[in-house]
Amino acid sequence: MSAVPSSNLIEEYLAECRAFVLDELRALVPARSRYGPELYDLMLDYPLRAAKGLRPAVCIATCRCLGGTLEGVLKSAATLELYHNAFLIHDDVEDGSEKRRDEPTLHRLHGVPVAVNVGDGMLALALTPLLENTRLLGLGKALAILQCVSRMARESAEGQALELSWIHGARFLVREHDYFRMVHKKTSWYSFIAPMRIGGLVANVEESRLRLLGTIAALLGVAFQIQDDILNLTAEERAYGKELGGDLWEGKHTLILAHALATCSAADRERALGVLRKPRPRATGQSTLSAEIRSLRAEGVLDDAAFSRLEPLLAEPAPEKTPDDVAFLARLVERQGSIAYAQRAAAVRARRASRLLAQLTRAPSVHLRFLQLLSEFVTSRAR
Amino acid sequence: MSAVPSSNLIEEYLAECRAFVLDELRALVPARSRYGPELYDLMLDYPLRAAKGLRPAVCIATCRCLGGTLEGVLKSAATLELYHNAFLIHDDVEDGSEKRRDEPTLHRLHGVPVAVNVGDGMLALALTPLLENTRLLGLGKALAILQCVSRMARESAEGQALELSWIHGARFLVREHDYFRMVHKKTSWYSFIAPMRIGGLVANVEESRLRLLGTIAALLGVAFQIQDDILNLTAEERAYGKELGGDLWEGKHTLILAHALATCSAADRERALGVLRKPRPRATGQSTLSAEIRSLRAEGVLDDAAFSRLEPLLAEPAPEKTPDDVAFLARLVERQGSIAYAQRAAAVRARRASRLLAQLTRAPSVHLRFLQLLSEFVTSRAR
Repeated sequence: MSAVPSSNLIEEYLAECRAFVLDELRALVPARSRYGPELYDLMLDYPLRAAKGLRPAVCIATCRCLGGTLEGVLKSAATLELYHNAFLIHDDVEDGSEKRRDEPTLHRLHGVPVAVNVGDGMLALALTPLLENTRLLGLGKALAILQCVSRMARESAEGQALELSWIHGARFLVREHDYFRMVHKKTSWYSFIAPMRIGGLVANVEESRLRLLGTIAALLGVAFQIQDDILNLTAEERAYGKELGGDLWEGKHTLILAHALATCSAADRERALGVLRKPRPRATGQSTLSAEIRSLRAEGVLDDAAFSRLEPLLAEPAPEKTPDDVAFLARLVERQGSIAYAQRAAAVRARRASRLLAQLTRAPSVHLRFLQLLSEFVTSRAR
Repeated sequence: MSAVPSSNLIEEYLAECRAFVLDELRALVPARSRYGPELYDLMLDYPLRAAKGLRPAVCIATCRCLGGTLEGVLKSAATLELYHNAFLIHDDVEDGSEKRRDEPTLHRLHGVPVAVNVGDGMLALALTPLLENTRLLGLGKALAILQCVSRMARESAEGQALELSWIHGARFLVREHDYFRMVHKKTSWYSFIAPMRIGGLVANVEESRLRLLGTIAALLGVAFQIQDDILNLTAEERAYGKELGGDLWEGKHTLILAHALATCSAADRERALGVLRKPRPRATGQSTLSAEIRSLRAEGVLDDAAFSRLEPLLAEPAPEKTPDDVAFLARLVERQGSIAYAQRAAAVRARRASRLLAQLTRAPSVHLRFLQLLSEFVTSRAR
């Protein structure tokens, strides 16, 4: 990451917004509840971990650079953060992720049942401030914001369904077009499109500027996700907070992988697809135990009598990804220049977003400056 | 079940409402979508299985017996059915349930990731008709309905959190008071309170009658859940559609169990609590394999060399409930007269609900008749 001179402004702006939003969330989530520690207390777990708070900051900056007030937009911005964290909890369950923001995921700490329910509770609680908006902003604006949030939640579920259908169909030859559609739904909508549109709605801008905001947001969303994919392969472990290289182990569909598969030799593609179809190994459990029993049998340590009783209980031997497999993918991506390709694809979009931002308003402000720096930051960030 | 002479009216009323609601849901859920078969198609899976459609029927009957129109209430009633089924999908994941309405649960068919995401998608989609209500009913009424649905979703999550905290805390000595609070949140709110309140809101009744509806609904909800618990122990397998006796295997907190534990001897209570603390056995998997390996070792079939390599991979031997354990619980419940006790508790509430229903309106209608018969049906139904 090149240390841009104005990175301080970004950090400060994010930190300030995050403080406001956390105050709002603390006021929204009941503090000492009678429903066991397993509902409201856990709703603040992810939001309180070290995080950028990007989405509410984007929402607040958009609103304020267009003449809206902090007071008018804060409830909606906090709601976006609550939605974001509810999605993260459910996504972590769905992806079987181990770590989130440097700590174990919620379902690793409290089990899948609690994690699913806490996410549901957050989605329910998030409606409260959106309904309170009617008093603050009037019925019409409050409903337009609700409509936007409803669309955002649907788009996220659609994006997630697309990705899950690729995993389940073991469909690894995903085209760039598919990748961009999935990212538009899964990342852009809730990270940029909804935050910027809601900022614009609160600031009361006309439909044409709402559309311009939508275009800018879609560009930033894709650039942001591509950078996320790049960091997964190239970041420094300490700064990253997630599992480095985890995307290759999981066979996640990224622009990088799509490019490598589209440009490599037929033989390499064949081998890569074979690797991608294999699941990542599980740390321990039945499959490991089964594999060890099969080894003992092969070595002749287990005789017929013992093995015949164990055999019906063994897990099917499924080939799993090996470190060699993943190293092959990493080399392929390197050799095809796919990371550089993805960097260019992100940079092009970030620059277009930056140019369009200049058309948004002529009034200079720290809020507009933040958004402009952000369009550089999305492709230069280290975490 | 005693075949009440008017059971035909109930069946017919339910069937008619269900047909309207399914039409509404089919119009709401996109038919052939591009998001793989794993989102919108699956949203209709549970709703299309054989089901009573109780919640929308209660909502429609309440609205119409108070002078509201079918057209005015239908969108909201359909939304309740969508919420109900989304909760069922997530509940089945959280409870690890195998069957729902005579067929495998959604996560058994398509995996936990897809099931969690489909539920989230349904919760997002459910906001659409509630927002369309603004055109149909005006802003004020539409917002009051949204507020009620938001409260309903929160109450459900709180009820689920209560139950999960009991399971995780292995707290089996749950008092009646706790049971009733959990049921109020987990069952009554989304099965009766929200449907009846929304029916009343659409029919434009005054606040005092909304409160009366709330009282009736809370009584019916508890009676309904108690009957559910009774059926789990006494129903005929064919009519039931769920796993008979599953509550005892799962150690579910029911009024029946609370009564048995509160009234039995100290020795029986001790033994019962010991049984309840044990998990139910898993069908296959690592624990079964581990147990078989320990047996082989005990029988001397496995020698030191083989066992020493397998031992670090074995699951901790955890005692699981046995058929004898569950038979003991069933006998205890029988001996303490706990089922009869629960039947009385349900009947008292159903009768009170029936008396209060007579105060709701003086205008006779098939809709009021349905609600009156329903308050008998909740404690006499066989499924």
